[in-house]
Amino acid sequence: MTAQPESPENMDPQTLAEKTAAQLWAQDQATQNLGMSLVRVAPGQAVLRMTVQAHMLNGHQTCHGGYLFTLADSAFAFACNSHNQNTVAAACSIDFLAPARLGDTLEATATEVALAGRSGVYDVEIRLVSTPTRPNNPTDESTPVALFRGKSHTIKGTVL
Amino acid sequence: MTAQPESPENMDPQTLAEKTAAQLWAQDQATQNLGMSLVRVAPGQAVLRMTVQAHMLNGHQTCHGGYLFTLADSAFAFACNSHNQNTVAAACSIDFLAPARLGDTLEATATEVALAGRSGVYDVEIRLVSTPTRPNNPTDESTPVALFRGKSHTIKGTVL
Amino acid sequence: MTAQPESPENMDPQTLAEKTAAQLWAQDQATQNLGMSLVRVAPGQAVLRMTVQAHMLNGHQTCHGGYLFTLADSAFAFACNSHNQNTVAAACSIDFLAPARLGDTLEATATEVALAGRSGVYDVEIRLVSTPTRPNNPTDESTPVALFRGKSHTIKGTVL
Amino acid sequence: MTAQPESPENMDPQTLAEKTAAQLWAQDQATQNLGMSLVRVAPGQAVLRMTVQAHMLNGHQTCHGGYLFTLADSAFAFACNSHNQNTVAAACSIDFLAPARLGDTLEATATEVALAGRSGVYDVEIRLVSTPTRPNNPTDESTPVALFRGKSHTIKGTVL
Repeated sequence: MTAQPESPENMDPQTLAEKTAAQLWAQDQATQNLGMSLVRVAPGQAVLRMTVQAHMLNGHQTCHGGYLFTLADSAFAFACNSHNQNTVAAACSIDFLAPARLGDTLEATATEVALAGRSGVYDVEIRLVSTPTRPNNPTDESTPVALFRGKSHTIKGTVL
Repeated sequence: MTAQPESPENMDPQTLAEKTAAQLWAQDQATQNLGMSLVRVAPGQAVLRMTVQAHMLNGHQTCHGGYLFTLADSAFAFACNSHNQNTVAAACSIDFLAPARLGDTLEATATEVALAGRSGVYDVEIRLVSTPTRPNNPTDESTPVALFRGKSHTIKGTVL
Repeated sequence: MTAQPESPENMDPQTLAEKTAAQLWAQDQATQNLGMSLVRVAPGQAVLRMTVQAHMLNGHQTCHGGYLFTLADSAFAFACNSHNQNTVAAACSIDFLAPARLGDTLEATATEVALAGRSGVYDVEIRLVSTPTRPNNPTDESTPVALFRGKSHTIKGTVL
Repeated sequence: MTAQPESPENMDPQTLAEKTAAQLWAQDQATQNLGMSLVRVAPGQAVLRMTVQAHMLNGHQTCHGGYLFTLADSAFAFACNSHNQNTVAAACSIDFLAPARLGDTLEATATEVALAGRSGVYDVEIRLVSTPTRPNNPTDESTPVALFRGKSHTIKGTVL
């Protein structure tokens, strides 16, 4: 007798979040290709890390805002899809507060702030967790690198 | 007798915008590495193009919002630095209106909307200009792919 | 024989925009009570004026940002409801660029930038059109007082 | 012998926040005239309440978004000026999540999220604390009425 794969309706919210994240990850070439890693996922939450590479630098030799946005947007996507409803970004805003440099490892923490009908609001904070010269010296207390707010919109279908 | 290179103070605004763009481009690995091309630059304005590549696709097989943002943010950077004052992005917002797919060529048009002291506001519109199945059939009349608004902050120094 | 009132389906877009605006105006105590006047309405567009009164001043003796927002938000409401579909604000952002003072008359011009399904994007620019000391000397060329971007969401029902 | 009034430099941060708030309040006609009350102030934080009055209603007979914004913007102003540095709003965004109706009492809680140089980011959450039919039945657990994010800019001078 073969074990039946668990159906999404029977999963507890944490298992659902984890299975959903695994499925999204497998399909998301953009997130994979930037060397991101998924630190943690939970219902309405996700934490991703990314290290700033040479091809991400702009003319000021700091991380192009587009890559900071991409990191935050990916964390947002994992958080807002964690309930297994297909959900897309409708609009996002980002404040750039401190530069990130070559070799810096950044962590984006996405948190669900509100859900109302098919719309949701998620906040993402990007912080520096290590730099090449201080690899084991997280600077969590300092100014965040960027603050991001995403508005989600639930569409038809489920992730799993 | 050798011709003297023209100094920035003596350039007309259009020449200054073009020289500044060339200098920014040469230093910006992120923009170069994504295959963007600079269509046009003018004082307070810039137009960039980018074609959606496989590594830019998210789990929905559409262009990851991060790459749409990056295209808009680069157009914003060329526009806000076009006066030769070093200028950085302080905050940005983006509305996602229509998906972009593999092979689509997108055009981002950045326009200066306001300048007040060291702060500026720039609007960027991303439109689809060709798709693999309709390469010569621009759809300029349709819904934009995304609308972006960037707030700039002038810092010390000049680009040239 | 009595003339039949024209039904909304038979109106041209401009007439529909004007009738819709008249209906919204009659029901909107907030807009009426702030002394706003409707300068012009058209499909997807609206222009409103408001003069800064003493009760609108903040601790800096300039117009409280809330009243600048309210003026812009009202212009947005008239513009996004001009097609006779009930439409509400989902989200708004505003950039404050120059202060407004007691007695200044402000004009907010709302323009439809995009419509995609049930969502729309509208830009509103607030400009100073006269001040107590220069009543007939519009300063249209100067920095706008504020730039506003509103995202609309169509709900059930019609205005008329 | 006369007691010397304490100078701002010698105050602890909480006393400074309270004295600053009292001074701002006395000068702010807009906030006073809308019947707001200051529930609490602390360094980087402020909580304000407002009850929705008939003159605040829009055509949908719900509180005009402009008054929700004004409440949030006032809470933001008290929070960002609480360190006694003159600080103004540079830009704000608001998401409208649930309507407020005549007689509803709303509470806006402003929190400092980041300070970097002369710029700051503050989040404000507006929640329903009582309604006419359920005056003693706060609904804190429900969807917030609105979420606001403000970007501040420190200017010359001090409040006290």
